[in-house]
This record gives sequence, structure tokens and C-alpha cells, in this order.
Amino acid sequence: MDFGVIGYGYWGPNIVRNLAGLDGAQVRAISDMSPAAQARARKAYPGVTVTASAMEVITSPDIDAIAIVSPVWTHYELTKAALENGKHVFVEKPFTSTVAQGEELVNLAEQKHLKLMVDHTFLFTGAVRRIARLIDEGALGNLYYYDSTRVNLGLFQHDVNVLWDLAPHDLSIMDHLIKASPEAVVATGQGHLNGHEDVAFMTLYFPDKIIAHINVNWLSPVKVRTTLIGGEKRMIVWNDLEADEKVKVYDKGVKITSREGVYDLLVSYRSGDMWSPQLEQIEALRQELGYFVECITSGQEPFNNGHAGLRVVRMLEAASQSLNKKGAFVRL
Amino acid sequence: MDFGVIGYGYWGPNIVRNLAGLDGAQVRAISDMSPAAQARARKAYPGVTVTASAMEVITSPDIDAIAIVSPVWTHYELTKAALENGKHVFVEKPFTSTVAQGEELVNLAEQKHLKLMVDHTFLFTGAVRRIARLIDEGALGNLYYYDSTRVNLGLFQHDVNVLWDLAPHDLSIMDHLIKASPEAVVATGQGHLNGHEDVAFMTLYFPDKIIAHINVNWLSPVKVRTTLIGGEKRMIVWNDLEADEKVKVYDKGVKITSREGVYDLLVSYRSGDMWSPQLEQIEALRQELGYFVECITSGQEPFNNGHAGLRVVRMLEAASQSLNKKGAFVRL
Amino acid sequence: MDFGVIGYGYWGPNIVRNLAGLDGAQVRAISDMSPAAQARARKAYPGVTVTASAMEVITSPDIDAIAIVSPVWTHYELTKAALENGKHVFVEKPFTSTVAQGEELVNLAEQKHLKLMVDHTFLFTGAVRRIARLIDEGALGNLYYYDSTRVNLGLFQHDVNVLWDLAPHDLSIMDHLIKASPEAVVATGQGHLNGHEDVAFMTLYFPDKIIAHINVNWLSPVKVRTTLIGGEKRMIVWNDLEADEKVKVYDKGVKITSREGVYDLLVSYRSGDMWSPQLEQIEALRQELGYFVECITSGQEPFNNGHAGLRVVRMLEAASQSLNKKGAFVRL
Amino acid sequence: MDFGVIGYGYWGPNIVRNLAGLDGAQVRAISDMSPAAQARARKAYPGVTVTASAMEVITSPDIDAIAIVSPVWTHYELTKAALENGKHVFVEKPFTSTVAQGEELVNLAEQKHLKLMVDHTFLFTGAVRRIARLIDEGALGNLYYYDSTRVNLGLFQHDVNVLWDLAPHDLSIMDHLIKASPEAVVATGQGHLNGHEDVAFMTLYFPDKIIAHINVNWLSPVKVRTTLIGGEKRMIVWNDLEADEKVKVYDKGVKITSREGVYDLLVSYRSGDMWSPQLEQIEALRQELGYFVECITSGQEPFNNGHAGLRVVRMLEAASQSLNKKGAFVRL
Repeated sequence: MDFGVIGYGYWGPNIVRNLAGLDGAQVRAISDMSPAAQARARKAYPGVTVTASAMEVITSPDIDAIAIVSPVWTHYELTKAALENGKHVFVEKPFTSTVAQGEELVNLAEQKHLKLMVDHTFLFTGAVRRIARLIDEGALGNLYYYDSTRVNLGLFQHDVNVLWDLAPHDLSIMDHLIKASPEAVVATGQGHLNGHEDVAFMTLYFPDKIIAHINVNWLSPVKVRTTLIGGEKRMIVWNDLEADEKVKVYDKGVKITSREGVYDLLVSYRSGDMWSPQLEQIEALRQELGYFVECITSGQEPFNNGHAGLRVVRMLEAASQSLNKKGAFVRL
Repeated sequence: MDFGVIGYGYWGPNIVRNLAGLDGAQVRAISDMSPAAQARARKAYPGVTVTASAMEVITSPDIDAIAIVSPVWTHYELTKAALENGKHVFVEKPFTSTVAQGEELVNLAEQKHLKLMVDHTFLFTGAVRRIARLIDEGALGNLYYYDSTRVNLGLFQHDVNVLWDLAPHDLSIMDHLIKASPEAVVATGQGHLNGHEDVAFMTLYFPDKIIAHINVNWLSPVKVRTTLIGGEKRMIVWNDLEADEKVKVYDKGVKITSREGVYDLLVSYRSGDMWSPQLEQIEALRQELGYFVECITSGQEPFNNGHAGLRVVRMLEAASQSLNKKGAFVRL
Repeated sequence: MDFGVIGYGYWGPNIVRNLAGLDGAQVRAISDMSPAAQARARKAYPGVTVTASAMEVITSPDIDAIAIVSPVWTHYELTKAALENGKHVFVEKPFTSTVAQGEELVNLAEQKHLKLMVDHTFLFTGAVRRIARLIDEGALGNLYYYDSTRVNLGLFQHDVNVLWDLAPHDLSIMDHLIKASPEAVVATGQGHLNGHEDVAFMTLYFPDKIIAHINVNWLSPVKVRTTLIGGEKRMIVWNDLEADEKVKVYDKGVKITSREGVYDLLVSYRSGDMWSPQLEQIEALRQELGYFVECITSGQEPFNNGHAGLRVVRMLEAASQSLNKKGAFVRL
Repeated sequence: MDFGVIGYGYWGPNIVRNLAGLDGAQVRAISDMSPAAQARARKAYPGVTVTASAMEVITSPDIDAIAIVSPVWTHYELTKAALENGKHVFVEKPFTSTVAQGEELVNLAEQKHLKLMVDHTFLFTGAVRRIARLIDEGALGNLYYYDSTRVNLGLFQHDVNVLWDLAPHDLSIMDHLIKASPEAVVATGQGHLNGHEDVAFMTLYFPDKIIAHINVNWLSPVKVRTTLIGGEKRMIVWNDLEADEKVKVYDKGVKITSREGVYDLLVSYRSGDMWSPQLEQIEALRQELGYFVECITSGQEPFNNGHAGLRVVRMLEAASQSLNKKGAFVRL
């Protein structure tokens, strides 16, 4: 599989390094508009074509698949061009800037019978794979809530707010873990510096009383990456900053024991052991790129395809509408 | 100062113990409707009158001040009776169930020239006193946000939801630290067991782009008591579960350095030392009750008076309205 | 069971409070040489005889058992007098100042058919009970090492060094958990202020390559209470300062896989899940005092009897000899 | 400066990568006896000579300096050959297997006017540099103790025990921070698997009552990298596993206030703020290699020269003697 990579800024080098290490994949061309980025790419990969022109890569007949690792506002145009040129596409999250763009691309990929994968890297980590398995096996019972905090002193973006920058991680993980679809979103937040919101909070209402909440912040003095998942039978705390023991499963719960009278004891607590499963030690991005190559080869549809990317964009777009109206209830 | 204490359940014994240890204060009578609570009170304090009748305590001519440590829905009636009987009142948070009740009591106390204090214990802790001093001295610069998480496997209440149970702590602290008044509130949440919300999130909009957020949850497998306060110059992380080093002050920040073009570097980061000030080792409740006695004696108006309690109830009432309408924007 | 308590300083009030709350036990008399301590005891327990004279308590015909909660150097004399007056004795750790004293008291108690219990409170905590059960069940396999760190900014003692002050906790726990007896001890340390060692380290050699190590320090800026227990099959980390999850069991290990050549791979690692068992939520001291009453009543010999106390004193005495000779190997 | 690198196993690639990125330095040749390591080196650095023969590198006329990144037992022979061939030498820690070897090499380097640097990487980290500055400025006052714990589920070595594997880090840091020289060492430990000690403890006695203690363990289920440094005025906790806030300075202390009588209060405590200085974000190894190049160019003697390496080997050799005699007091 011959790859072209568009964008060699912060994340691009990781894509190139992992593709280079993958059996059956070779990077043939890299494009970036910055001369400094081009120089870095040339030094690190002497045998690879490096160019300023994305279209040169996209139109190259030697290339089967394109990885698009450029800013969000370029995703639509570049992905469209790549698909139209018959290339499979691996595109950074968030997939597109609007739902309309995403829908068009999904349709185009299907028409062209090309694979379109959105880089939801976290779905390939040992932590998320283990949590998904626990939920699928019913270890948590019915889900109650999903509550994620993702804050740090952030890399300010010029084109997007903190919601579009950080929440795609949480939304893609949530979308993967919770089988149901959210019905509505409420978002609040505030910008303090350059007009874009740097602090934001999202609530998502699901059927069956499941509720999700996401707290993202570019102005936090400390880095936090913690997700609580509450279920009827068990609860999970996932702290992604822990070196070991990232995922802790608590055999704790609460249940209604009687409903006789409003001032009787209605609720009983269950307390038990905590258990931290060993996680697979894998580089998530390598797994994901390997899976992309495998999907192209086998014709299998990736689970993190354009539809998955679109679901995240739909939530972001709705959240933006809600944010602009200071917490308006926006149906999905 | 002779005290009567109404309610000897979970918190009442702490009130009695601290009053008993306070110079110039004596507990003369305790009431509780539960025979078991009465028996415990009698055993622990042989010399004190113990009764089932709150009115017996409230009308006793030997008593100067009443501490009301009973469920929220009884606060209005008991406080009103106490004030009408010429007693100073120390009442548990939340102050009342409705704004209307709170306003009536505040007016009544002022008419009667009696002291009315709401038990916002946290305001008397070493941590909150130190943070307040830092903010007052300008150490944080302009405030950006206040973000608090208060979650645990909770004691389910039969009469209130998690917002009325846990958020009064955060709202009273926030009200004390942020000099401005919030303009509006958005609240979301969900109940899973007995009809009351057990998971809830509140956003408060303040003038000058200050935003506050409160996350309360009765269904968390782990206990979290963490507040982040972001300012222009410095930021604070207050983790109340740390044995030492509860308050950490970060000499970190972000500021706009240029506004030339949207794709130029707009924002610069400042990183620096962290500093954890030593906190006063005081029992907050003892300080607060001593302050109550002092206010009565000196005629000084307590800062945690009925007005302070009312501000918290106003936020809770607005949040409840918002919660019922799934995140409606409710002006304060 | 009628009790007399000698010593009402730091720990004495806990003994009295727990005895007072115990079915079948009453405190009849308390002695302390300090008038301030006597005043506190009188205020807290109006019905109990309070005196300056330990002998008045010891010789009282109304008393069945004596709790000795006074400084170490008084233990021998007071315990001896109590036993000679026919009283059962519960005595603080460390049991005595010398092995000779301890042996005499153990013999005396046996002659008089009286119960002699040494207050090794930690053995009654949920954590130690759970660890003991794990070891007894073979969950750890053969033990490799026991390594405990117990440091903080300490309450300097005038009569003993840090080893006699802090290590008895570790030695009594180690003695309880490791079935074998140590064969020798090596201790090092240094005093910086008042002549007594304030920093000390102990190594204990056991049969079968088990090794124990204890690090005690009165000059640490942070409090640490962590014990690592390494076994062939599993390993334990016990952090007593954690609110929850004090005990963590690691399914990790190392084993020899071949011995073919010295530069071949000799050792293989096993990595697995971590598991934190829920611990009993009990007040250890109440359990221990209840057990003391039960042993007296039933005639059962307590496992934390004079012999157990003596084993700890024997290790302390040997460690002191080693410490004085800067790490001399002292056989036990 | 043209470099040859001997050894391309675990640490070698880091040396090569950092030399390659350094202005004024080029790697010309790499040797490793393992064909697999040679293949990896060839793939990563196409332009560099890769060979099985260390002597080919050492004798190459194109090379100015040699980095020796091979097992300890080879250090003496390779360093000697390199110096005899007129090359400057950068050699892994521990410097040599014996004091005699180290002395010979130090003398040889001086005779030949060649630079000999021992890779004590930690001395170039932001943490150690900051601690050194604090001690040099007198922020801690007189030192009381240095206590380091370095434990994990370890990479078992075939040729050395845990002391020779892990303690050189601590000994080189301690040697750098404490200006005085240790007078004696006591070491204890135990081997459980392949004959080499896998658990070991070292005490070092210094003049002026300074004491150092090092706890190293290959059989710990958790990784710990914590050093406590106690001083008269302030104390430091350095936790190298913290992402931020690795170094914490405590304004805490203890001092003698009176010496009137043995049972009077002799010692007073001072408690104060904690402060965590921001550390330089540098790659220590790059700094160190840059410093090596600079020392060669400028003729300046490196502080981590052969003498520094020799001091560490002297402590290790003495500790081994002590360990073999189960804690014998061995003078340095």
C-alpha cells in the first residue's frame, strides 16, 4: 500500500513514522506548505518525495491512500479531492467542519467504493478496548452516566474553540462505548482571550436515562484526563495519566430496595473490591493504521469510518449551536 | 449564650460538641423526634434537657439562640418560630426550600434585630480562608473560571436531589470568593433511582466573562473534592481530600500577545513555580460557632448571614428550573 | 470486667473511650501524674475515680484488669505490680525496655494464670487482617521480602530513639505476617538533635532467603506509611495513608526459566492485573480491647500476648546493639 | 568531533541519536557483536559504518572520541584500548568493575591528556541541577540525611547484582549533591533467583552526622523513584515519576530549643509552605554529550570525570564487601 501524507506539523510525523514501520505500507510522498516542515521531512525520510503541494500528492498515480493530517477547515476539500482521485482516505479528527461536508464525503466514498477512516486514535488504546469489552460483556450492567474531564494549559487553536479541539476525543470514545445515540445536547462555555471558547461543558441526553458530560478547558494549570463511567452493577474510573493502572473497575453500586414510603430507606449501597485489569501495551496509532491497511485489503468496513466521524461532527455542530445560545437544548 | 439545638441526627452532634467546647456558650436543650437520637443525646450530655418537641426548645425562656440542624423542608417554619420567639438563629444549609421563604426570614430577622446565620462551614476552613486572601490580594488577577467537582457514592436524600444536597457547599464558597453576582444559570442532570436527580451539572454565567461550573454526583465510585480556579495571573487547584497541600497555587497563565492576523501566534504561555501555602489548622465549625456568638455579642453582622444563604437558595431555585427544562437559560 | 487505666496522655483517652463503649467492660479508675490530664479525665468521665497514684488503681479490689498506657520505662514496674495484685494486664507497645524485663513478666503472668496482652493495635486493622489472610491462603507463594517505610516529622521522644518509637509497629506486623523467626539483625542510623537516633534503618535476615527492611525517620517532611511485601506468586503494596484501596495485590512476579548459561535469559517476568480487596471498616482498638475481654472471659490465650511483645523487644534490643556498633550483625 | 559508539543494545541508540542531533558532533562508526543490533543500526543510520569489531572502531584514525555503551565487565579493557589509541572516552556507569581498574584508567587518561567522562546522566536533569543549586545556595542548611528508593520489577542482569545495576544512579547523584566524602558503608541484601542480590540496602556514614541510605529492589511490583533530602532549614522530596512537580521543597524543620532537662521539651517543630520550582525541560543526555564535546574542545575538566566515576565504584566495591559479610562496617 503506497501512502501520501498531507501535513507534517505536530501529528503528521507520528503518522509517517508508524506507516514507515508497518509491514505492507510505504510512505511515497509528504506535503506541507511550511518550508521548515518540508526540511524536517526531507532530513528524516531521504527517500520520500517532499512537496509544498497537497494536490501533487493527491493526484500522484503511485499512491493508493492518503493520510490527511492538516487543519480541520481543509479536511473537506482535501478529502473530496483524494476520493475523486480514487484514493482511500485516513483523515484527522474532527472529520469535517460541518455535518453537510461530512455527509457529502461519506456518500462520495461509498459511491467510489473507497475506504474512508477517521483518526479516532483513542479507540485503539488498550484502555478503551478493555473498557469496551467490559461494557459489552455486561460487567457494568445498565449504564447510568459517562463523565469526562480533559483539561490542561492548552495549545490555543486559531480556527476552532476548545470544544472542537478537545471534545472529539471524548465524543468518539463515548460514541464507541455507549451503544445508544444521544437525543440532545446542551453546551455552555466562555472565551477569555482570542474570541474562541477556551472553557466549555457539554451535556448529552441519551435514551434510558443515560447522561454524558464532557468538561474541556485550555486554561487549566494541571492536566487532567479522567473519565467516570457509572453503571448499575459496576463503575469505572479511567485515568489516562496513570502510568499503570489506568483503568479501575469498582464493584460498587446503589440500588432501590423498596419504594414503600418516601421517607423510608429507598436506596441501598453495595461496596466491594476494586480491580485494575492489565491493559495491552500497544501503540494505538500503529494498530489503527494497520487496521486501515487491513480494511483496504480485505474490503472490510472500518468501525471508525466516515459515519463514525460524522456522528462526532453532528454532536459538535449541535453543541456549537447550544453554546452560542448559552445552553439551548438542541436535538440531534 | 444559652443554646437550644434542634435536630440530633448526622450533623447535630457536631454542633452540640463544638458549642459545648466554646467559651461563653452552653447547650441547654436538644430536640429530636427520634427516640434513638434522644437517647444518644441524653447519654452524651447528661445535664442537658432532651425533648421530642422542637417548640419546647424554641419557646424556652432560658434560651438565647437556636441552632436548627433538621431537614431542609423544616428550616422555614422552625427559623420563623425561633425568630418570632426572639431567638438568634444558626441554620443549616441550604437556608430554605424557596427564595420566598428565605426573603421572609431575612426580613423578619432584620425587623426583630436578631442575628441569622447560615451554616456555610466551608467558609471557615483554612483552605477557603487562604484562597479568599489570595483572590483579595489580587494574586490571581482577573478571574476566568471556577470549576468544582464534588462526587462520591452518596447518601441518597429522600426530599432533595443531588443539586440541593451537594451544590450548596460549592455555591456558598463560589459566592464568597467571586465578588460579582452570577447573571444566569444552566443546569442539566439525570435521576436514575428514586426520581431525584443523582447526577447534575451547573454552569453559572457572571459578568466580565467569568464562568462557574459545578459537577455533583451521588453515583461516583470514588470521592472527588476538587476545585480549579483560573485567573489571568495565577491559577489554583484545591483538592480538599489531600491531607496536606490542599491548596496549590500555579504561577501559570496564558495571554494574548498579538492580534495581527488570525493565523499568527496570538497566545503566549507562561509557566512557573507551584506553591502550596501552609493552611491554618482549625476546626471550621468551631470557628464558625465562635463567630456566631461573637456577632450576637458585638452586634456585628455576619458575612454568612441570611442574605448569603438566600443568594445560594436563589441559585438553587434557578438551577432547579433550568434542570427541569433540560438546560434552559434562567436569569438570576 | 472492671478496668483501671494508668496514663491519660495521648493514647490513654482512646483506650478509655473504647473500653467505655464496650459491652461487658467498665472503666472504674484512671490515674495520671499530671493534674491537667486528671482534670481532662474528670471532665470527660464524671463517674470514674481519677487519681495521681497508679498504685491506688493497681491495688484497688474493685478492678479486674489494668490498661497501662504510660511511657515505656514504666511498663515493667507497673505491669509487675498489676500482675502481683492479681490483675490482667493490657500494656502499650513496646512491651518493656529490655528482654530480661519482658521474660520476667511473661513468666509471672503464666504463674499467676493472668492474661497479659501487648497493644499491637495494627494487627486488628482491616488491612493487616486481610494481608494475613492472603499470606495464609498462599496467595503470595513463598515470601521474598518485607519492606516498610514509616517516616514523618515526628514527635521527638525524650527517652527512646526513633527505632523504639516507630519500629514496634512494623516489627509486630512483620512478626504476625511472617511465620518464620528472624535469625539476625543489622541496624544503622544517626541522631542529629538530642542524642537519640532520629533516622534509622533495620535489616532482618530470616531463614529461606526472606529479608525484611524497616525505614523509620522523625525528620521527614512528608508522612509515608508504605509496606511492600514480595512473594513468588504475588506482591502486595500496602499504603496505610490511602483513604480507600489501602491494600493492592499485584499479580506480578519473576521466575527463573532456565539455568543453561550465565548469559542466557535466566529470568522471566509475569505481569497481570492488580486487585484491591475491600477491607473491613472496623476500629482496630475497639476490636483489640473486645478480644482482650473475651480472652479473659474464655481463658483463651491472646495471639498478641507477652510472648509476642517479647519477640518485638528482642528485635529492638538486638537492633540497638547493632545500631551502636554501626551495623554490626547481631544474632537473635 | 567524530565519534565511534561501542554497543548498540538498550542505551546505545539513545547515545547515537543524541550525538547525531548535536552541532559539531558526528557518529562515524558503531560496533556491536549482535547481528540484530548491527542491522538495526544500519537501517536507522545508513551513512554510518557498522561493524562487529569494537577494535575496528577504537583504532580508526577518523575518530576522535569513543562512547562505550557495553556491559560493565568490558569497560576497563575497551576504555584502556581507546585511551591508548588517543581517543577521548565517554563511558557508561558504573565506570569499572573494580577500583583498581578505575584508578589505572584515570591515570592513563591524565597521562595522555585525554578527556574521560562517565555517563552519570541524572546529573544533567533539570531536577538534580535545581536541587544542587538549592543546596549550594544554603537553602537546606546543614544536611541531615539523603534517603533514596529506586525499586521496580527489574531487568535482571546476568553479570551484576541490583546494587551495581541501580545504585550507581543514586551514588553519583549523592556524590554530586553532598560535598563531603562518605567514611564508611554498611550494606545488606538478599538474592532469590539467580544468585545475585535482587534486593539490597546501603547505609553510608558521612562526617558531621550526615547519613545516606539507598534502597534498591528488582522485585517490586510498583516502580518507585523517590529521594528525601533532610536539612536543618528545609527538606526536599524528589519524586522522579511525577510528570510535573518532581521536586518539592518543604519549609519544615525541627530544632533543639533547650537542653535544660531530659524530660523538658527539647525539640521544636517548624512548619511552613511547600514550594515546587519549575525545572528546566531539557534532555539530560543531550546536555551531557554537548558538555563532553565542549570539555574536549575547551580543555575544561568535566565534573563527571573518571575521578567521579571512581568514587562511585569505590562505594560499590565497599558495599559489595559489606553485603557479602551481611552488613559489615567497611571504611572507605
